Amino acid sequence: MSDEAEVTALGSESTGRLTGLEKGLPGLGHDRVDLASIAGAGWNLLRGDLPLPACTLGRKALEHNSKRMLRFLEAFAPNIVLCPHGKTTMSPQLFQRQLADGCWGISLATFHQLRAARRLGFDRIFYANELVGLQEIAFVLQELGADPAFDFYCLVDSIDGVERLRRSAEQSSPGRPVQVLVEGGFPGGRCGVRTVDSALDVARAVHASFPHLCLVGLEGYEGVLQTKPKDERQTAVPSFLDILLEMIRACDAEGLFNARDRIMLSAGGSSFYDLVADIPRYLQLSRQVQIVIRSGCYLTHDSGLYARLFEDLKQRNDIAQATHLSFEPALEIWCHVLSTPEPDRIVLGAGQRDFGHDAGPPVMLKTAQRGVCTRLLAAGSYEIAIINDQHTTIKLPVGHGLGIGDMVALSPSHPCTTFDKWRLIYEIDDSYNVVGAIETFF
Amino acid sequence: MSDEAEVTALGSESTGRLTGLEKGLPGLGHDRVDLASIAGAGWNLLRGDLPLPACTLGRKALEHNSKRMLRFLEAFAPNIVLCPHGKTTMSPQLFQRQLADGCWGISLATFHQLRAARRLGFDRIFYANELVGLQEIAFVLQELGADPAFDFYCLVDSIDGVERLRRSAEQSSPGRPVQVLVEGGFPGGRCGVRTVDSALDVARAVHASFPHLCLVGLEGYEGVLQTKPKDERQTAVPSFLDILLEMIRACDAEGLFNARDRIMLSAGGSSFYDLVADIPRYLQLSRQVQIVIRSGCYLTHDSGLYARLFEDLKQRNDIAQATHLSFEPALEIWCHVLSTPEPDRIVLGAGQRDFGHDAGPPVMLKTAQRGVCTRLLAAGSYEIAIINDQHTTIKLPVGHGLGIGDMVALSPSHPCTTFDKWRLIYEIDDSYNVVGAIETFF
Repeated sequence: MSDEAEVTALGSESTGRLTGLEKGLPGLGHDRVDLASIAGAGWNLLRGDLPLPACTLGRKALEHNSKRMLRFLEAFAPNIVLCPHGKTTMSPQLFQRQLADGCWGISLATFHQLRAARRLGFDRIFYANELVGLQEIAFVLQELGADPAFDFYCLVDSIDGVERLRRSAEQSSPGRPVQVLVEGGFPGGRCGVRTVDSALDVARAVHASFPHLCLVGLEGYEGVLQTKPKDERQTAVPSFLDILLEMIRACDAEGLFNARDRIMLSAGGSSFYDLVADIPRYLQLSRQVQIVIRSGCYLTHDSGLYARLFEDLKQRNDIAQATHLSFEPALEIWCHVLSTPEPDRIVLGAGQRDFGHDAGPPVMLKTAQRGVCTRLLAAGSYEIAIINDQHTTIKLPVGHGLGIGDMVALSPSHPCTTFDKWRLIYEIDDSYNVVGAIETFF
Repeated sequence: MSDEAEVTALGSESTGRLTGLEKGLPGLGHDRVDLASIAGAGWNLLRGDLPLPACTLGRKALEHNSKRMLRFLEAFAPNIVLCPHGKTTMSPQLFQRQLADGCWGISLATFHQLRAARRLGFDRIFYANELVGLQEIAFVLQELGADPAFDFYCLVDSIDGVERLRRSAEQSSPGRPVQVLVEGGFPGGRCGVRTVDSALDVARAVHASFPHLCLVGLEGYEGVLQTKPKDERQTAVPSFLDILLEMIRACDAEGLFNARDRIMLSAGGSSFYDLVADIPRYLQLSRQVQIVIRSGCYLTHDSGLYARLFEDLKQRNDIAQATHLSFEPALEIWCHVLSTPEPDRIVLGAGQRDFGHDAGPPVMLKTAQRGVCTRLLAAGSYEIAIINDQHTTIKLPVGHGLGIGDMVALSPSHPCTTFDKWRLIYEIDDSYNVVGAIETFF
C-alpha cells in the first residue's frame, strides 16, 4: 500500500510546462494549470466536467500492467532488466511510475526524446537507435561530461557511424567512453548489420575506438517482424534472435566487448519479449549476460494489435500461463455523438487527430448516457465507416438508441500513435473521477 | 513590400507559450525560447544548426500561396470571403498571416481549437461543426457575453441539437443570439441533414428559437467526397452543391433566415472551392448571399493528395487557367540517413510521428550532403518500403550515393496530419536560413 501511495505521488509531480492551451482542458476557469490542481479539482468524466474529446488512463489498469510486467520478467532469470521504450508515452510522470515499479532505465528513439528526458531529469537512457547527427552527438558528449550520473547507451550499425561517433568523442572528450552496442538486423528489415561478418567488422571498429567508445553489447529489434503473418513470424522471430546470438558469441569469442562487468544483449519490443527473456537459459558468454528488454506498450496495453499479439504470447509461453499473466487496456478516447444523420449511422467528435489507426481502427468500448456508463454492442456489431481528422462515422444497427450528446469511449490499437495526439491525459478511477493527470512531450 | 514586412512581423509574434522542450529545438543552448530569438539566431538548416528531424516552412512558398488564393477568389465575385480552416495548422502566427492577407475569419472544428483560438486573441470564428457538449456550449455563451467583438458561427443538423443550444442560451443568455447555420449532408456522408424537408425542419426549429438562436445560413462540406474515384466525384460534388442550393432556397422562400443583412452559404474545403466560388453566378435569394469558403490546405499545399486534386481544379476552371493559378509545397520534414543496411535500402530518422501518411506516403524531395542541397531521383525511382513511428525505410537503386548522416527532405501528402506532429516549425528562406518560426496548438 505504501508503495502505491508513493507511485501515485510521483505520478502527480508537474513539470511546470503546461501552457494552459492543452487539448482536453475545460473552457471555464483559469488559464494556467498544473497537474496537482487537476488531481484536486474534483472533476468527473461522466458528469460532464471535461470537454470532449478527452483522453483518459485508467489508474487501476495502469498499476496492474506496470507491476505485472516486472513480476513476469523476474520469473525468468535475475539478470533480465526492463528498460521500457519511453517513445510510447513520452510522459515524465509515467517514466517515474515505471522506474518506481522497478524498471532499470528508459529507452528512447530520437534526439528530441533524449533531450526532453535529460531536461526532465532522467539519468539512465538506452538510445535504441543510431546516433548520427553531429549536433546530436555533441549534445550527448556534453551531457556525459557534465553529469557523472548520466548512464547512456546507443547503437551503431556501420563503420561510418562508428567513425562519426569516435571523431566527435576525440574532439570533445567527455572524460569517459560512450557506451555502444552493435545493432543486428535482418534482410528486408530496418537498421542493423545483416551478417555475423558485418557485426564483427563494426564491433572491431568500436573496440579499436576505446577509450573514446566502449563496446558493451549487441542489440536487435525483432518487433519489425510483427507485421508478418502469424505463421511466418513464429519462425522468423526465433531465427532472428538466433542470428543475434551468433553475432554476440562471435564478438565475445574475439574478445571485442570492452566492458568488464557484463555483456549486454538488448531486444524485445512489446510482442516477443518472452522469447528474449528466455535467452539466458541457453546463452553462455565469457562474462555475465545482462538482458535489456525494451517493451513500451505493456503499460497501457490496447484493444487491437497488442491485445492480439499478447494472445499469441500466452499460448506459447508456460510462465505466462502459470502466472496468469494479463494486461488491461488503460487508454481511452472519450467523445460526444455529434450527429445521428441516418438511422444506422452516428458521427463522433473524435478522429485521427485523437487516436492512431495505423494498426487498425479503435474499438468502440463503452457508451454513457445522462452520466451512466454502459458497455456497448459486441465487436462485429458495428462498423467504423469513415475516420477523418476530427470525426469518426460509425455504422450501427437501426434502433441503437444513441442520441446527440451521448458519450462514447474508444479504445485504440497501438498506444504509441494515440499518446502522441495528447499533451495532457487524465488519470481516472473506476467511477470516472479524475484522480490525476500526466503530461507528454512529443 | 511594406505589406510583406508587416506580415513577417506579425508572423514572428510569440505567444510566450513555448515550453523549451519542443521537438526540433537544438540541444545546446538555453532551455527557454521564444520565436523572436529563433528568428534572430542565425541558424542554417544545411549547415547542421538544427537537430533532425525538423519541420520547415518555405517562406516564399507560404507568401505566394497565401496571396494567390485570395486573388483567385476575388476574381469570381465581391461577396466571397475566405475563412480558412484553422484546424490545418492551428498556428496563431499563420492565422495572423492569413488575416493580414485578407481572410475574413478562421474556421475551426473542435472545442479545443476554439478555446485555444479565443485565448490567443482571434475574434471571428466559424465553428464548422455541431456544437453539442453542454460545457462547450457554456464556454461559447460566456465568451459571447463577455466580448462584443467575438463573432461566432456554428452548425446544427438536428432538432435535438437545436434544443440543446436553445436551452443553454435561455438559461445563460449572452445578450445576443447565437448565429447558427443548418448543415446539409448527403446519404453515406458525415454530419448534415440529408433532405430538403429535414433542412426545413431544423431551420424552423432555429428560427423559432430567436432571439436565443439566429439562423444566418446554410453550410455543407463537399470535401468528404474527395476520397471517391475521380469520375464519381466529378458528378457527386456538383450534385451535392445543388442539394445545398435547394435547401437554402427552400429556407429562404419560407422566410426562415433571421439575419437581415445577408444569407450565408458556406462550403468549400481544399479541393472544390472553385465550384463553390462559382455559385453567386446562379444563386438569387431574397437578400445578399455571402459565400464563406473554408479551404485550409492551400496555404502550404502538398506533394500528394492536394497536388493531385489541384491539377483537376486547373483543368476544369477557366479562371484558374486564365490567372495561371499555382501553389507551391511549403512544408518539409528534414531528417538524417541513419543507416544504409543493404545496397538498395536506406533508413531515415523520421517516421509517422513526424509526417502524416493517411493520404499516401510523402515524396522524397531533396537530399543534402556536406551542406549542399541537390534535387533527388524522380518520382517512381524509389519506393517507401516501411513507415514506422520514428523511421522510414526506402528502397533505392543500387549506387544511390547516399551515406550515413546525409540529409533528406520529405514533402508530405495532406498537410493537416503533418502540422499536428510539430509544436514548433521553422520558417526558412531559399538558402535554408532559419528566418522565423511558428508555434502550433494541437
